[in-house]
Amino acid sequence: MQTAFQTIAGDPHSGRVRILDQTLLPWQTVYRDLASLDQAAQAIRSMQVRGAPLIGVTAAFGVALALQSGADDQTLSHALATLRATRPTAVNLNWALDRMQNALRACPLGERREIAWREAQSIADEDALANGEIGRHGLALLQAVAAARGRVRVMTHCNAGWLGTAGHGTALAPIYAAHAAGIEVAVWVSETRPRNQGLLTEWELGQAGIARTVIADNAAGHLLMHGEVDLVIVGADRIAANGDSANKIGTYLKALAAQDCGVPFHVAAPLSTVDWRAADGSAIPIEQRDGAEVRRIGGCDVQGRPAELSLLGEDTAVSNPAFDVTPARLIRSIITERGCVAPARLGQLAPRM
Amino acid sequence: MQTAFQTIAGDPHSGRVRILDQTLLPWQTVYRDLASLDQAAQAIRSMQVRGAPLIGVTAAFGVALALQSGADDQTLSHALATLRATRPTAVNLNWALDRMQNALRACPLGERREIAWREAQSIADEDALANGEIGRHGLALLQAVAAARGRVRVMTHCNAGWLGTAGHGTALAPIYAAHAAGIEVAVWVSETRPRNQGLLTEWELGQAGIARTVIADNAAGHLLMHGEVDLVIVGADRIAANGDSANKIGTYLKALAAQDCGVPFHVAAPLSTVDWRAADGSAIPIEQRDGAEVRRIGGCDVQGRPAELSLLGEDTAVSNPAFDVTPARLIRSIITERGCVAPARLGQLAPRM
Repeated sequence: MQTAFQTIAGDPHSGRVRILDQTLLPWQTVYRDLASLDQAAQAIRSMQVRGAPLIGVTAAFGVALALQSGADDQTLSHALATLRATRPTAVNLNWALDRMQNALRACPLGERREIAWREAQSIADEDALANGEIGRHGLALLQAVAAARGRVRVMTHCNAGWLGTAGHGTALAPIYAAHAAGIEVAVWVSETRPRNQGLLTEWELGQAGIARTVIADNAAGHLLMHGEVDLVIVGADRIAANGDSANKIGTYLKALAAQDCGVPFHVAAPLSTVDWRAADGSAIPIEQRDGAEVRRIGGCDVQGRPAELSLLGEDTAVSNPAFDVTPARLIRSIITERGCVAPARLGQLAPRM
Repeated sequence: MQTAFQTIAGDPHSGRVRILDQTLLPWQTVYRDLASLDQAAQAIRSMQVRGAPLIGVTAAFGVALALQSGADDQTLSHALATLRATRPTAVNLNWALDRMQNALRACPLGERREIAWREAQSIADEDALANGEIGRHGLALLQAVAAARGRVRVMTHCNAGWLGTAGHGTALAPIYAAHAAGIEVAVWVSETRPRNQGLLTEWELGQAGIARTVIADNAAGHLLMHGEVDLVIVGADRIAANGDSANKIGTYLKALAAQDCGVPFHVAAPLSTVDWRAADGSAIPIEQRDGAEVRRIGGCDVQGRPAELSLLGEDTAVSNPAFDVTPARLIRSIITERGCVAPARLGQLAPRM
């Protein structure tokens, strides 16, 4: 199984944060060293790092990078504002930056740099721990299926594995746990246009030796209708207090098909993904990304090098919402580090004010 | 508006059938001359021609091509069997071949060649006429929306335009009719992975000067949920007697989202697409196509030439069902050349036995 090092590792001694550049995967494995606030912000915007939990961790380290060159209030405020503006939907970003702000606001200027690195590392470590607990709680769902059917066929969407976190992943954590427990598990992997993060999931599961089959996003309904899926598990970028869950565009379609076909649909996410101030999904901002992501597509050429093709002319009108909201009524349970809860009971896990 | 000539034109004098090679669109406009049964069968299999009605027309001309080299029963039977085996889901293929068989079986050998060309042309001409009627009947639906809202926003899937027929198309025919009637119409075009026939729709609507916006297939639910779509119209490859409709993979997901969001979902198809012997959708064979269609993707390079990239290694496990079945309960009406009918009333249009 993979470790936290592979997506991100902060080093206070060198003042660098090493990331795995996910825009080149699965074709090339390239690590990059971030040395400044701007580099951290750009890594998030360009999706060199992606996945709600990892976005939060990267932003936290981005604050530490910003404070390398000065720890005054203005530098801190600028760093927080710059990082908050990178991507709108993943609430883990705000959650992590709020934590950094709370840890740094009151402390002496001379200690800020050290505390920033320490707090960012804590956020990363806690995310990895949460992943482990999500895996443990989700495993029970897979064990129940395996006990009844002898094997488990999971459908997922996008990538909510170790690549999207600082640990073992969210939606994929129960799958890794099941595999480790000797359960026969196979995964349906949607390619997840327009950015094809399903290819990250295919690569990640392949590294772990887990059976998986790639499908076009369009094929999900057909497979669900024909009894090819035992349960669906996806991640989330922001969960409203009522359980409505924003996740990668296309998730809502899978949830509808799962409901229509009587297949349980679960969302796996740490509680840092819950936006307790959002009453329901309508309060979740949905990122609109550049139409170029639809107009062009990345793959590899015959030499296996990352390459890009044009699908549509640059003046073709395109709409590119990056997330959609799955209503709580379509979600069987939310798998958190504190257990699996029905959306209606999510409030029981809310922090005490 | 486009004419039948642009997808297919049979010429009994030269013994050739000219087709527009749709595998090169929208990057290159190349016509090819088919001169033999095998070339016709290969054009269908490789999707140089595609769309249920056009597959039927091409198969009919394929019989005429086969009879060029001899009109005996064995040649005819071989031609019918070869063409029937090209693609399993579009019932128009069987329908057209049954018509050819009925026209040719009883006629003198010496007249078969001429009758084959004539019957194939009749099938093409009748398809174009049916398209016109589908456009006329569907137009009423769009006029009703336009009267209430001042404009119409249609979502479609795949390509069911003039490129998929011998006339003006099926799902797109009402849109062309509305545009010609001066109604402000805009179309949401799903790219339709894995073969990206949405790009054909984008190109086709562009030729006609109709407003359109391309989306990843995953984005359909989000747009429906946010009130961006007035109605959905798709084509069909085979409609069962109860109204269950097989269409390009991903159609079922759009139908579910349309229902969940209260948006009417319509299927437009000629009656040649109805398989009266199929009681419901479970009787419709679903084509499984080569996984290479998911593993690789076509686009154009920086010089604008058709090119291909690899998305996944050749040994990656892939499932590639080409169609799914939308249950009749999700369909508001089926738009045929004899009018719009609710699926439950489709039987009223059945041929008398």
